[in-house]
Amino acid sequence: MDFAYDAKTQELREKLLRFMDEHVYPAEQIAHRQLEEAEDPWARPPVIEDLKAEARRQGLWNLFLPDTDHGAGLTNLQYAPLAEITGRSPHLAPEALNCAAPDTGNMEVLAMFGTEQQKKQWLQPLLDGEIRSAFCMTEPDVASSDATNIATRIERDGDHYVINGRKWWSSGAMAPNCAIFIVMGKTDPDAERHRQQAMILVPRDTPGVHVKRGMHVFGYTDASHGGHAEIVFDNVRVPADNLIAGEGEGFAIAQARLGPGRIHHCMRLIGIAERALELMCRRAVSRVAFGQPIARQGVVQEWIAESRVRIEQARLLVLKTAWLMDTVGNKGAHTEIQAIKIATPLMAEWVLDKAIQAHGAGGVSQDFPLADLWAQARTLRLADGPDEVHRMSLAKRELKKYL
Amino acid sequence: MDFAYDAKTQELREKLLRFMDEHVYPAEQIAHRQLEEAEDPWARPPVIEDLKAEARRQGLWNLFLPDTDHGAGLTNLQYAPLAEITGRSPHLAPEALNCAAPDTGNMEVLAMFGTEQQKKQWLQPLLDGEIRSAFCMTEPDVASSDATNIATRIERDGDHYVINGRKWWSSGAMAPNCAIFIVMGKTDPDAERHRQQAMILVPRDTPGVHVKRGMHVFGYTDASHGGHAEIVFDNVRVPADNLIAGEGEGFAIAQARLGPGRIHHCMRLIGIAERALELMCRRAVSRVAFGQPIARQGVVQEWIAESRVRIEQARLLVLKTAWLMDTVGNKGAHTEIQAIKIATPLMAEWVLDKAIQAHGAGGVSQDFPLADLWAQARTLRLADGPDEVHRMSLAKRELKKYL
Amino acid sequence: MDFAYDAKTQELREKLLRFMDEHVYPAEQIAHRQLEEAEDPWARPPVIEDLKAEARRQGLWNLFLPDTDHGAGLTNLQYAPLAEITGRSPHLAPEALNCAAPDTGNMEVLAMFGTEQQKKQWLQPLLDGEIRSAFCMTEPDVASSDATNIATRIERDGDHYVINGRKWWSSGAMAPNCAIFIVMGKTDPDAERHRQQAMILVPRDTPGVHVKRGMHVFGYTDASHGGHAEIVFDNVRVPADNLIAGEGEGFAIAQARLGPGRIHHCMRLIGIAERALELMCRRAVSRVAFGQPIARQGVVQEWIAESRVRIEQARLLVLKTAWLMDTVGNKGAHTEIQAIKIATPLMAEWVLDKAIQAHGAGGVSQDFPLADLWAQARTLRLADGPDEVHRMSLAKRELKKYL
Amino acid sequence: MDFAYDAKTQELREKLLRFMDEHVYPAEQIAHRQLEEAEDPWARPPVIEDLKAEARRQGLWNLFLPDTDHGAGLTNLQYAPLAEITGRSPHLAPEALNCAAPDTGNMEVLAMFGTEQQKKQWLQPLLDGEIRSAFCMTEPDVASSDATNIATRIERDGDHYVINGRKWWSSGAMAPNCAIFIVMGKTDPDAERHRQQAMILVPRDTPGVHVKRGMHVFGYTDASHGGHAEIVFDNVRVPADNLIAGEGEGFAIAQARLGPGRIHHCMRLIGIAERALELMCRRAVSRVAFGQPIARQGVVQEWIAESRVRIEQARLLVLKTAWLMDTVGNKGAHTEIQAIKIATPLMAEWVLDKAIQAHGAGGVSQDFPLADLWAQARTLRLADGPDEVHRMSLAKRELKKYL
Repeated sequence: MDFAYDAKTQELREKLLRFMDEHVYPAEQIAHRQLEEAEDPWARPPVIEDLKAEARRQGLWNLFLPDTDHGAGLTNLQYAPLAEITGRSPHLAPEALNCAAPDTGNMEVLAMFGTEQQKKQWLQPLLDGEIRSAFCMTEPDVASSDATNIATRIERDGDHYVINGRKWWSSGAMAPNCAIFIVMGKTDPDAERHRQQAMILVPRDTPGVHVKRGMHVFGYTDASHGGHAEIVFDNVRVPADNLIAGEGEGFAIAQARLGPGRIHHCMRLIGIAERALELMCRRAVSRVAFGQPIARQGVVQEWIAESRVRIEQARLLVLKTAWLMDTVGNKGAHTEIQAIKIATPLMAEWVLDKAIQAHGAGGVSQDFPLADLWAQARTLRLADGPDEVHRMSLAKRELKKYL
Repeated sequence: MDFAYDAKTQELREKLLRFMDEHVYPAEQIAHRQLEEAEDPWARPPVIEDLKAEARRQGLWNLFLPDTDHGAGLTNLQYAPLAEITGRSPHLAPEALNCAAPDTGNMEVLAMFGTEQQKKQWLQPLLDGEIRSAFCMTEPDVASSDATNIATRIERDGDHYVINGRKWWSSGAMAPNCAIFIVMGKTDPDAERHRQQAMILVPRDTPGVHVKRGMHVFGYTDASHGGHAEIVFDNVRVPADNLIAGEGEGFAIAQARLGPGRIHHCMRLIGIAERALELMCRRAVSRVAFGQPIARQGVVQEWIAESRVRIEQARLLVLKTAWLMDTVGNKGAHTEIQAIKIATPLMAEWVLDKAIQAHGAGGVSQDFPLADLWAQARTLRLADGPDEVHRMSLAKRELKKYL
Repeated sequence: MDFAYDAKTQELREKLLRFMDEHVYPAEQIAHRQLEEAEDPWARPPVIEDLKAEARRQGLWNLFLPDTDHGAGLTNLQYAPLAEITGRSPHLAPEALNCAAPDTGNMEVLAMFGTEQQKKQWLQPLLDGEIRSAFCMTEPDVASSDATNIATRIERDGDHYVINGRKWWSSGAMAPNCAIFIVMGKTDPDAERHRQQAMILVPRDTPGVHVKRGMHVFGYTDASHGGHAEIVFDNVRVPADNLIAGEGEGFAIAQARLGPGRIHHCMRLIGIAERALELMCRRAVSRVAFGQPIARQGVVQEWIAESRVRIEQARLLVLKTAWLMDTVGNKGAHTEIQAIKIATPLMAEWVLDKAIQAHGAGGVSQDFPLADLWAQARTLRLADGPDEVHRMSLAKRELKKYL
Repeated sequence: MDFAYDAKTQELREKLLRFMDEHVYPAEQIAHRQLEEAEDPWARPPVIEDLKAEARRQGLWNLFLPDTDHGAGLTNLQYAPLAEITGRSPHLAPEALNCAAPDTGNMEVLAMFGTEQQKKQWLQPLLDGEIRSAFCMTEPDVASSDATNIATRIERDGDHYVINGRKWWSSGAMAPNCAIFIVMGKTDPDAERHRQQAMILVPRDTPGVHVKRGMHVFGYTDASHGGHAEIVFDNVRVPADNLIAGEGEGFAIAQARLGPGRIHHCMRLIGIAERALELMCRRAVSRVAFGQPIARQGVVQEWIAESRVRIEQARLLVLKTAWLMDTVGNKGAHTEIQAIKIATPLMAEWVLDKAIQAHGAGGVSQDFPLADLWAQARTLRLADGPDEVHRMSLAKRELKKYL
């Protein structure tokens, strides 16, 4: 259980910290302005392309991908402190490094399960940051935390598959440059519970694909993450070669995808919380009320101390989880992945709430990133399954020791 | 300490409940659609005018105003259960009844302190729902919970006053039909602490008034409440007759305005929490996960029970506060007004958080009113002073008993 | 919904407040000393008899009993503020006024359901404060919050009933002057769920009654409340006339007994919380740390403000419950009785925890009443059924509205 | 940052786990019985001597002491998992291994600062488990979290020092075999703030030493830890050679002593929380209510999952702190030592509260160790300074980064 930064991590950390200072933080105001001037609520700020070019030039690119053929070949433990740093500016840094959800998970799926043709056609442009992608799993009409509920059908018809169904919270699908969807559906509803599903590649411009609207998140469009679309698939016909891995493999692919996806979110949440704590401290030393900086108020001191204590604990648990995934595999780290999925969003939400409170009314507004970050942290208590489902599952595993 | 509904309240309650069922709830979907179709993020849904006409026809109009010359002449205790009901649909019902903030507070100020001319020119069209108004007190550069911090100047110059300053969170000022601002500023910075301020009427179209932008609230524009503007007053010149009450009266007017303003918010928050609990229950009995309605899950039951327990307690405290304001005056009810200001937003926020969680990802989206209502409740932990300032002040009064 | 004190309540309140100042508070130190000098951990402090004599002389006696034949004839609403005051000194005041659990519930049972003979033999000496009594319902081997689980048998044998079973948490049974037990058991295990049980009077000195030990509560014996005994009933034979009301009536009697029992606990908890808040404030103004009284520390101020806010809310809910019990009966007040059972112990526990913290290490010791009071509040989250059972039941009733 | 168990730790862990199973857990019931039969509330159960002999025989002895001359020479990181295990049975295991507070801290002081004579006379019998010791720092009349408040005087008089003052919470001093006190007092009240204090050895039987009474902790005497005494030092005269290190060194010694003392408490608290979680799970799978084991209730599952998540986080923070103390020293680990002091007792208290609730009324009684363990965890939120002082101090260090 060794969490120390090795030399490679150390080098990348320093490079990334410099990149944040020199490029990302200064770009935040630019992006803010570009978005305010844009008419389209789903617009991407042009500055992001500058950041991407620079990051790639510096070798800060595809760090998330453990696969050495296509990515940086980092372990989870090596990637963790880097992902944390990108979390400090979550609207720009992850995409700047081509490490943004849901592309990361989609690239992993293609790298692990894709055919050569699929890799060439879709993985390569994703690795190059030329296109973005969406992941279409959740459905509006059923509790999707139970995968057997999925109602979308993927049916064989000669050389093609025909897809019918309705998805929502398809993250990434509202991005103007989103080109490809990975769609989860059932190929065989009568098979054994976890062999009913498959995943298939659907180009966004396929006839019958109707992107209906973007879901809002507490008033935000979350456009920087490509939004979250509601999509109707109406007799969408794609070549049979678009199937990933095979019929019945959907559940297994989803499981393989979920572990890294969750820990990436948690790593970034640590960075979000650190940013919030920094903003809270800066505000506290500079804002005067009742004749003294609010940093002298006992209640504000409690928030700051408690934030530090909570962040440290969550970070260590994320690091342990990364280390476990590296050493015993995602399955062996199941309990810890659930534990960080439960603990980290709540922690970040708490720190953000206090940082907002320390900022007064400004804290809930567009003048500080806090309200926006809060909405993201809050949403992660629901994304990939609500806390309650994870707690139930974790408890059952704990109880098994005594049965 | 009698909180029973008297005959008048009972009659108005029944009428209002019918009005909600027949007109307001059906209008929610209409307004939602009208706003989605509008280009302007500050647009008002046309349906609101239909609701206003109908409410006025039914005598459900200006219920908030205790003044029998201009309003319904209800006590706070009589008004409380009615305001609660409007809180169930806070984007439509309060304005439909001409009982929306900040107009309510502004009408009270004019009714209590206005000259005949001021009443004729501004109070009457407000009472008739023809125009809306804004209240300009908070400033971006200082901690406004301490009124002596206010930097805006109101300076006499012959028959006029000249106003210079920057305000934000001027609620109502983004509404297309907002016509008049009540502006707080200092007439005499050298006077005794609470005699430095004055309030003055500034028509929105006065030269030098620059409405810069609307503040966002967790991504929402809060347009249904007229938004919250940042406004620059640059050598704004208005007739001396526009001053309300007199130089040095600003602090006293603000105090008179705050008590009712706070309790109205709290009354509506009770209604918001009731709506959230209703939505949570409806969801719980209809949503199936893991083979049974989620209403059978112990955790969901805990949320529902705890919500009921917390709502009941907060409502009783609001009612007691209303009763105290009616019997011993706003000053005598100071502790209780602070107590509900502290307790009610937190309670509503808690209930909404659980209701959101019970709705899964839909809960944070535009498909349910919950995320929006949450943002309102959260913001009320900061509006009119952050919780922490109220707790500090309440504690000091409690401690005085032992000094 | 009128919670005002009427003239009778007002008069009794003033008399009781004087009694507390002149007799009870001064007796606290005396009792403390008498108990420290006693060898027996179940000893009662002799001073209690002086207090009883004085209270009775002043007409502060049996106030809890609504029955005008035997008690003061007060409504729940009239009794509530009086019980609250006794809660401020819960080891002395309730017993001093002959209003201590479990005697209160037992006297109510006898007054409502007892025969003339039972009243003469047991109710009268209880009303006179000559003996104490115990209530034997909870059993160690089953979850007693479900009354159908009760395993104790009460079997007819000629002119007698024979009782066999094991009880624990039989409150009052360790008191040296405890003379009579009311025992719940099953007369007919095959009857319909709520017709299986009966209650029977068992004099403590009946052969076969074995008081095994007193249960501790966080290290305390709770001797002032007569302790909580584990008792074995081994072929205990009592005359058939000892049965209360009749076979199959046990559940109904328990229900009748529980409502008042729960609200009395809650009333006293309000008083406990008020006492804790008073002690916290007194400590805060007198204790100096880091150069100033801790009353100036923001964190302590938060505790004090939040305590006041929570106490007020809980008190109002208790008053509403009392009013409902008086107007629509215990059954009509079922939801509210559960609500206060859930809310009040948690509230008192929270206030006590903060008061302890404000007292430093002294707070957990015998030098202040806080730790002891905390243990009582904590235990009331379990007595008469754990919070969770009440929340589940309350939620089900709330959900029924939507089925 | 490597937390893995090395070979030595691994070997000791296995040995210790076996010792717990074979000797300590079986001795718990024996000790319980021996104490119930003892007349003296400060009695030690004879079984503890058997455990000590066996532990020493197995080499499980003085593991806490990093000093290889006298102790096991373990690092903090090596000792942490062992101390955690002893926390599972905190009344027996720490003393069985001669690793119980306050002896551990006292032995460290003597090993680090004692003269040869002091070591021979007092350290050796402590290392051999022949006597116990007390640490006399806290005073009843001042806020002792501020060391400059200490009022006890240590005055030179020829070849002797004369000690006058009143201490309380002198842990260990009620133990029948407690032979020596380390007393903190002021030698020079006019010196610079942190050079006023000294520590001196006072044999318990010295004339003028009056052990007045033992402080209770929520009704418990805490006798297994030697209790917590109030002691008056009335012109107590000891040889000048009894001074430790020198005049003015008291503050520095106290600082050196505090770091390890705090982390040892936290290590054991992790074990206490693990024991509570185990008991909660065992109860959950075996207790039936409403027709099913309570392990199937969602609320109980939430407690269990949340307990696991919280314990893991706290343990990792304790391990990181141990690792820091080993690598950068106690001073470099200051923030982390405070962080675990804040986080761990609260965590353990939370887990214990839920475990108690899962046990029903039994949970607060002597039939399970939970209430007793809860009282210990609660008290550790005050021992060595209340949470609030640590949060204030930690926040100030965090804020310094931004000044």
